[in-house]
Amino acid sequence: MPFDDAFRDDLRALLHWRRDVRRFRRDPLPEGALDRLIATACLAPSVGLCQPWRFVTVDDPARRAALRDLFARCNAEAAAGYAGERAERYAALKLAGLDDAPAQLSVFADRSTAVGHGLGRRTMPEMADYSVVTAIHTLWLAARAEGIGLGWVSILDPAAVARILDVPAEWRFIGHLCIGYPAEEADTPELERAGWERRHPAGEAVLRR
Amino acid sequence: MPFDDAFRDDLRALLHWRRDVRRFRRDPLPEGALDRLIATACLAPSVGLCQPWRFVTVDDPARRAALRDLFARCNAEAAAGYAGERAERYAALKLAGLDDAPAQLSVFADRSTAVGHGLGRRTMPEMADYSVVTAIHTLWLAARAEGIGLGWVSILDPAAVARILDVPAEWRFIGHLCIGYPAEEADTPELERAGWERRHPAGEAVLRR
Repeated sequence: MPFDDAFRDDLRALLHWRRDVRRFRRDPLPEGALDRLIATACLAPSVGLCQPWRFVTVDDPARRAALRDLFARCNAEAAAGYAGERAERYAALKLAGLDDAPAQLSVFADRSTAVGHGLGRRTMPEMADYSVVTAIHTLWLAARAEGIGLGWVSILDPAAVARILDVPAEWRFIGHLCIGYPAEEADTPELERAGWERRHPAGEAVLRR
Repeated sequence: MPFDDAFRDDLRALLHWRRDVRRFRRDPLPEGALDRLIATACLAPSVGLCQPWRFVTVDDPARRAALRDLFARCNAEAAAGYAGERAERYAALKLAGLDDAPAQLSVFADRSTAVGHGLGRRTMPEMADYSVVTAIHTLWLAARAEGIGLGWVSILDPAAVARILDVPAEWRFIGHLCIGYPAEEADTPELERAGWERRHPAGEAVLRR
């Protein structure tokens, strides 16, 4: 299965224009789009083929409100950890699209799954979580290729999310995703545009051994 | 930045034909290919833009031999955990390309980084590790688009890998990657072809809330 230069250029553009989206339009996703994206996410690699990803679509208004309240509390606690100009900058950031994104998807890892017969997880049980992360990233890229944006919300207490969504006790929270059409498109991270942080050259992250 | 149907079809094909490769040809990668792929990996999302990925290219024969020995030991311990027909099947699997892959890359997460000012990591410090996983997955897809295969080796003791590679104590091992041209191409995981496990329908992994 060969790929050509035009595809590689477009793939590179996709990686450049993928964003962690926090500002969404309110129009709904097309019928069936979310389930289709979830099916695509399941093409991701998983350790020992254990497919530990568990997707929870969140539509119930009461659960959505509880998650929004949880984010507000966790975000206020995080804000209290900054001082001076950094605190002002933090307060000015928009860090979640929970009010506007038409779709919300909470994603968990089931480390207890018997699927895959434990292969590849003996010394690194966290590999199951990593498999779920590649599924989220797969969904993210496939969504962006359709013009759909995704924002990964991590300013949440994992145990509280699990309680709000009433999921099996053995599931481990990986991320809460806001999904919808982005209010704007950009090839630069919003945190970079806001002056929070800049990107570093790749070479700084490489050691030779 | 719009993408068209032809790109989406090719992206889907890329996801279908990406494999966890364990059988490599020995020809080297083109000059500069690995550094180019690492630079592409740095386009991945990272929590708070903290870019916690640390890449260690492993070329020293003694370190490579030590990693191969470590894999052999960890794999023997894992094999001892299976019985009967499952043990026979495990023994028949090829689980790493450490002998043949021309390039080896060990990837770590630096949770201690000040970059990103801690944003998004207060309740979930593991988000730094997840950012590194998306960088690995980005590298994986970009490599596959060039016909280059990647195999993620997790049957390793993380502390021993860190010792062998002499990396800073605060770095956390995420994965050891074998990279090179695959001996074969397939649209089905090797573990599925070997009868170890099968893929489950996406719908089985979805809850509605």
